[in-house]
Amino acid sequence: MKFSFDVITSDDRTAARNGRLITPHGEVLTPTFMPVGTQGTVKTLSPRDLQEIGAGIILGNTYHLYLRPGPEIVRTAGGLHEFISWDRPILTDSGGYQVFSLADLNRIAEEGVTFQSHLDGSYEIFTPEGTMEIQHDLGADIIMCFDECTPYPSTHQAARTSMERTVRWARRCQQRHRQFQESDGHAQALFGIIQGSTYADLRQECADTLVDMDFPGYALGGLSVGEPKTAMFEMIDAAVPRLPEQKPRYLMGVGFPQDIIAAVARGVDMFDCVLPTRNARNGSVFTSEGPLVVKNAVYARDFGPLDPECDCYTCRNFSRAYLRHLFQAGELLAPRLATLHSLAFYMRLMGEIRRSIAEGRFTSWSRTFLERYRLGQESEQTTANIFPGGER
Amino acid sequence: MKFSFDVITSDDRTAARNGRLITPHGEVLTPTFMPVGTQGTVKTLSPRDLQEIGAGIILGNTYHLYLRPGPEIVRTAGGLHEFISWDRPILTDSGGYQVFSLADLNRIAEEGVTFQSHLDGSYEIFTPEGTMEIQHDLGADIIMCFDECTPYPSTHQAARTSMERTVRWARRCQQRHRQFQESDGHAQALFGIIQGSTYADLRQECADTLVDMDFPGYALGGLSVGEPKTAMFEMIDAAVPRLPEQKPRYLMGVGFPQDIIAAVARGVDMFDCVLPTRNARNGSVFTSEGPLVVKNAVYARDFGPLDPECDCYTCRNFSRAYLRHLFQAGELLAPRLATLHSLAFYMRLMGEIRRSIAEGRFTSWSRTFLERYRLGQESEQTTANIFPGGER
Repeated sequence: MKFSFDVITSDDRTAARNGRLITPHGEVLTPTFMPVGTQGTVKTLSPRDLQEIGAGIILGNTYHLYLRPGPEIVRTAGGLHEFISWDRPILTDSGGYQVFSLADLNRIAEEGVTFQSHLDGSYEIFTPEGTMEIQHDLGADIIMCFDECTPYPSTHQAARTSMERTVRWARRCQQRHRQFQESDGHAQALFGIIQGSTYADLRQECADTLVDMDFPGYALGGLSVGEPKTAMFEMIDAAVPRLPEQKPRYLMGVGFPQDIIAAVARGVDMFDCVLPTRNARNGSVFTSEGPLVVKNAVYARDFGPLDPECDCYTCRNFSRAYLRHLFQAGELLAPRLATLHSLAFYMRLMGEIRRSIAEGRFTSWSRTFLERYRLGQESEQTTANIFPGGER
Repeated sequence: MKFSFDVITSDDRTAARNGRLITPHGEVLTPTFMPVGTQGTVKTLSPRDLQEIGAGIILGNTYHLYLRPGPEIVRTAGGLHEFISWDRPILTDSGGYQVFSLADLNRIAEEGVTFQSHLDGSYEIFTPEGTMEIQHDLGADIIMCFDECTPYPSTHQAARTSMERTVRWARRCQQRHRQFQESDGHAQALFGIIQGSTYADLRQECADTLVDMDFPGYALGGLSVGEPKTAMFEMIDAAVPRLPEQKPRYLMGVGFPQDIIAAVARGVDMFDCVLPTRNARNGSVFTSEGPLVVKNAVYARDFGPLDPECDCYTCRNFSRAYLRHLFQAGELLAPRLATLHSLAFYMRLMGEIRRSIAEGRFTSWSRTFLERYRLGQESEQTTANIFPGGER
């Protein structure tokens, strides 16, 4: 099955839409949230845990998997799906973000990025062509262009230089990818990544150029990197309306439930973020009444579930008091049960978003959800502009 | 349902037997291995993982649960079963071993043991009556007398003094326990613990005295604490034959597969040990061909399962190469998948032991198993005397 995407329902009042991604490893309904499996595992969870909570597509990181265990081992295993025993869709990023954020040292040139491994200090180089080869070895259903993740803040000139290089790299990625496509029967879909820092004109220009190149999907990169939330939504508003209706839009690295809802209202289809998994490991879980730091002493005698609305394995069987005890005792079951719940929360959130769009009540559902979730307790910046342009 | 035990089949050639423990939380077939759930969780595993691999009864530690979260919280939760969401039998130890092995400081007196918590340095006292009260709060199906775990080596005189105190404490435990039994309908069974260090006469004397006191089950304590394996088996040989046929015998803290088989041959019914779980967390798993250190580099490209004989979730879905990668990457899924496998190995081992006894081929099964398992690779001491007295 080749990659395709179609829009099923469009919301009347916002740019929200329901879609369907079709990949060689099955269908995914959008809007979707992709749990992050950086090193070939969504931390603490097994594939059947993920299936149980309804995860449709997960993410793997090219940077990490390249350094360890290495693409050759994954390829020999039969690809990432086989290696990690996950038979549903996978998306791999290109490592563009990680060579800047994780590598000990990096030097950028037209050819690519030279960096030092954060694991052993070895010198490595990522080129557009090289990351296509690695991602071909990994064998994900959706792969990403190697981009330059422009740091925030950047001057307009620096952001332009960086964006233009990202575009040139996208051409090289596309060219190398096409060679693989001929041999592997178009098994992988390559998405373009829109950069341009916090400058609407650069985002528009980048979007227009990539659209001309005709990628099967488009991502917004270089956001959620420290800029104000208002700037992030302005960039979404600048780029998304220029993207083809019938292609999926992916907002990389986002985010909080309220940010996801606001981005869905702007026409975004795909999300990934380490928030639910990372916070859960630290003892903070998402619930329908907002985040809850279950390791806090106040829950020592709270025998209710993490979230009374939730029907995940954790909530069906264990109390806040037990979770709190496990965290206090440093037990490995603690991050596991908390992660399972928080991802189940995100999966349910996305399911409710999709259902509300299908039933023409996305706006009212959002308001009710956010009211309950006590909008703004983590981030007040989103309060003002959940719905772009006063809803369309 | 009150506690009871009956022997179903006795082996013709050894003292091995199949039995059935009946407890308020269901039946357990013996010989059985009890996974250790020190802090109210078998590390890394969920209750449904344990059920899936066929765990019948698990162990909880009084010392740890007393210190954290405290018996009052567990009681308020409805007892340990409810707190940890495990509806099958539980056995709690008395903390006798831990106050000596874990507490920062301990002082023994006739009244009990004063010790400093290894968590916060607080001064605590465990008395025979007190540990009955804690274990009553925890609500396990089988509870243990508070004993003095005689250190190895000890002089005969020191071992006698210690053993005699253990006997006096056992009387106090029994007395306190009887008061609870009147109120709770005999929900908990109290086992006596035989001490006596490595002196056969003391072990025999202790066994005889405890048998006179008529406990529903008997444990051998103070073994596997550094003494030679030969001494351990001599103590089993000294004590077990003096115990009533129709009561269960529990060898505390044992052990390796070959030791379990040798103890079963001597009439032991119950075992617990941290070996499969602790070693798994460190990257070493049990397999039908002996232990395997899966984190070793030699497995980096080994795409076979941990144990080709095993049908656990880990072996059905993941390769040694993937497990090795997870350990290398420090992923929490690594200890989880390894623990699941090693406990599944122990559960299958016990199932094979029971089946071989039932079918009158325990001796031949043992020889075949041990040959395959490459007897002696961890501990050569057991080689000579797997079968006591040349089989009876």
